[in-house]
Amino acid sequence: MPSNSARLAQQMAFIIEADKLKNIFRQSYISDASRRENDAEHSWHLALMAITLHEHANDPDLDLLKILRMVIVHDIVEIDAGDTYIYDEAHKQDQAEREQKAAERLFGLLPSEQAAAFRSDWDEFEAGASPEARFAKAIDRLHPMLLNHLAGGKTWSKHGVVASQVRDINRKIGEGSQALWDFAQDLIEKSIKSGSLPDR
Amino acid sequence: MPSNSARLAQQMAFIIEADKLKNIFRQSYISDASRRENDAEHSWHLALMAITLHEHANDPDLDLLKILRMVIVHDIVEIDAGDTYIYDEAHKQDQAEREQKAAERLFGLLPSEQAAAFRSDWDEFEAGASPEARFAKAIDRLHPMLLNHLAGGKTWSKHGVVASQVRDINRKIGEGSQALWDFAQDLIEKSIKSGSLPDR
Repeated sequence: MPSNSARLAQQMAFIIEADKLKNIFRQSYISDASRRENDAEHSWHLALMAITLHEHANDPDLDLLKILRMVIVHDIVEIDAGDTYIYDEAHKQDQAEREQKAAERLFGLLPSEQAAAFRSDWDEFEAGASPEARFAKAIDRLHPMLLNHLAGGKTWSKHGVVASQVRDINRKIGEGSQALWDFAQDLIEKSIKSGSLPDR
Repeated sequence: MPSNSARLAQQMAFIIEADKLKNIFRQSYISDASRRENDAEHSWHLALMAITLHEHANDPDLDLLKILRMVIVHDIVEIDAGDTYIYDEAHKQDQAEREQKAAERLFGLLPSEQAAAFRSDWDEFEAGASPEARFAKAIDRLHPMLLNHLAGGKTWSKHGVVASQVRDINRKIGEGSQALWDFAQDLIEKSIKSGSLPDR
């Protein structure tokens, strides 16, 4: 076991490296449509959603701390692997491999037993392997839909995304929260009615 | 008690309003010094610090979930009240009053018992009224020092801040974590040596 100050130095190296998440930009715009959102802001917004909305999970006895640990680290791999747009099937091909390598390097900056704990949370999230992971993934899917609805469908129209794709990709929200999937379907209907999502 | 969908509508109104935190810019620059950091990114980075560093708190038996709840909501009041620079004594005069009004309005968007819970977390943080709050405040003070050190002291020099001020303002880090205050004092020394913080 390294000394306390050696541990702290490793932990600080991880925290400093993680600052780069603020320069990884997503396809989504923030709600006023003025600019694209970055992964750090997105992760904070998911944490706020988790605290506010966890009562709507299918399983009411979730461990909120575990959900927060997952959403706070879930996108850190994108520092190396970049953001992959959920509707980009070509780029999704090698996404898993790129992200596994990134997880090795980035969590590997931490003291070894802490690296293993962070990696375990991230693996659980990626696999949707628990009610907590399924709820975390549900809000991770709902969040860009919400922003895109507020921003007038800017990202959908830029990429030619239509309603049937949005439904297919996001149906899994229901595995974490039926109430949030109902809400998401309402958003889709509203976006169709307002003309920001083609009804195909 | 409102129906489930009425509750969800109130909660979503809060989550949508909170998106504005991404447009509240702080005095600190991100570590590559390319642009100023916003409150949403800062709050995420604090959450990551809390998860990574809570073992260094003076009190080793902290409730990590409570710390995360506090750091995730701690700056939301700045949507209405704006960011107040910690070395700006004039602007700090009416800060408490502006932030109290903001807390009323913003947490008041939530269902009432949830509003009370969020408000209680924020009050506890503001008052430093528990070991969790003192640790949360410690990382909230350490974070801009760390960024500013990495960015070559850009914010300090812009505002004419000197080492004795940095020590006076940040000494309270030791109330939450002596280990982090030791680390912070090292940062101050390094910043003096590299010429990014005047030794006065």
